[in-house]
Amino acid sequence: MIGSFAAATAVTVLDSDRPAGDAEGSEVRFAGEVHPGWDIGGNANGGYLMAIAGRAMAEATGRPPVTLTAHFLRPAATGPCVVDVSIVRTGRRFATATASLSMGGREIIHLLGTFGRQTPGGPSWIREQPVELPPYDECELPPEASDGPRPAMMDRLAVRIRPGDEGFRTGNPTGEAEIRGWFAFAHPDGAGVPAPDPIDAIGLLLVADAFPPPIFNTEIPIAWVPTVELTVHIRGVPAVGPLRCAFRSRFIHGGLVDEEGEIWDSAGTLVAQCRQLALAPRLG
Amino acid sequence: MIGSFAAATAVTVLDSDRPAGDAEGSEVRFAGEVHPGWDIGGNANGGYLMAIAGRAMAEATGRPPVTLTAHFLRPAATGPCVVDVSIVRTGRRFATATASLSMGGREIIHLLGTFGRQTPGGPSWIREQPVELPPYDECELPPEASDGPRPAMMDRLAVRIRPGDEGFRTGNPTGEAEIRGWFAFAHPDGAGVPAPDPIDAIGLLLVADAFPPPIFNTEIPIAWVPTVELTVHIRGVPAVGPLRCAFRSRFIHGGLVDEEGEIWDSAGTLVAQCRQLALAPRLG
Repeated sequence: MIGSFAAATAVTVLDSDRPAGDAEGSEVRFAGEVHPGWDIGGNANGGYLMAIAGRAMAEATGRPPVTLTAHFLRPAATGPCVVDVSIVRTGRRFATATASLSMGGREIIHLLGTFGRQTPGGPSWIREQPVELPPYDECELPPEASDGPRPAMMDRLAVRIRPGDEGFRTGNPTGEAEIRGWFAFAHPDGAGVPAPDPIDAIGLLLVADAFPPPIFNTEIPIAWVPTVELTVHIRGVPAVGPLRCAFRSRFIHGGLVDEEGEIWDSAGTLVAQCRQLALAPRLG
Repeated sequence: MIGSFAAATAVTVLDSDRPAGDAEGSEVRFAGEVHPGWDIGGNANGGYLMAIAGRAMAEATGRPPVTLTAHFLRPAATGPCVVDVSIVRTGRRFATATASLSMGGREIIHLLGTFGRQTPGGPSWIREQPVELPPYDECELPPEASDGPRPAMMDRLAVRIRPGDEGFRTGNPTGEAEIRGWFAFAHPDGAGVPAPDPIDAIGLLLVADAFPPPIFNTEIPIAWVPTVELTVHIRGVPAVGPLRCAFRSRFIHGGLVDEEGEIWDSAGTLVAQCRQLALAPRLG
């Protein structure tokens, strides 16, 4: 179902003042569509919206994302969208661009990113090993919630959660603000089986926001956790196979919560790291 | 010397199409100056540039920063600068804006941020305790380097480094990509003594980039580590006193290095967390 994700994030050029090449200062307008089935309780997933805009920015700059930040302005339902990309700077290695994804004339997310190809090699120093996880088949399908259906988006994915990490759905939070699991897109032939194709940089933008908020494993009441800002650093090109993921919150106070994560491929390479700032649920 | 920092990051409105209030879509142009003495080897410090632009964005939105991302396009020397702020969205709690800091018609950094007041209270869950550090007076003044003078910026600060963490300057790296220390602005009356005033959100933008790169404590050669992207989340209003800081790199590969940090105030409150993506030095 990677084909489905590609289709659900497809964009086409509507209008461009860009000369041949990718000149600084040029503007490109893309048309896209926020498709049904990529939402959490009726609001389009933030990583999914970022993937649509990120794809437009990648097409405008001719390069995949290296680091992309989105600020979330309003929730989005489904329907046609427009992505306006402005190219800020192009260099040999990197291009920097801003973008704005709008629906019905209202801006939904605003983005700033730097784009360029991964360049494996060079000095390497890795502080942490890949996320520890039981094998894919020993992890769990996200359960139906006691308080409502599983998010629609989960039917398009073949995510598996570390046993116990979704206990909060049945009233058994772990007490640690962490969620680990495997990410894959669902195979087109059967629900719940991983698709065979590797996941690209645009797909990684979705992965960064595809798991439940780790805050659900604390005693803080479960409620919508609206993202204010999400930054994703792409650190490698994933090999084929499900991705090992770990997401955690470290500091919940003053009405805000952080959430950071690492995404590793099947070969043990860190392929993305992400961090977001979100509104914490209010008590009472 | 907080007065000096305030003066060195001051901005004045040049031109504004903003009506009364802070209407969406309005643009405000500020004039500022990149002052001497806030550089590392002739290149203006990234956090310092972010503070100039962040101050302009805060004035345009009427609120301090909550989360601010800067992408670094070119190194900057000293001289006059212009900051163009565009207000993307204003809401009750938050305002989102983009900005561009230019010198001589060339854009130096491009920013995207969300601004709003801190709202202490609400649910709290803290995974980590404040950074452990020896007392301020038992930490060390950043040493003169064997390979050149101490960065000019250090004379404006009263930073103290955990003993051993700057051993790399004399050929004794710790082997761990981490640097801890205390941050303070220097007292106007005497070099090296902390100024008495509390540090504000604009000052925290500088703190986020004021320590040497933790990568210097690995075996990777010491060289300029140009920032590609820096995101700072402001998480509180600092109490009076030096700030406890810890910065570390976790993943150095593919020519890029991350650097993340936490900044705590003297009362033990997390007041900022930051993360950047930078170019790793190339071997040979």
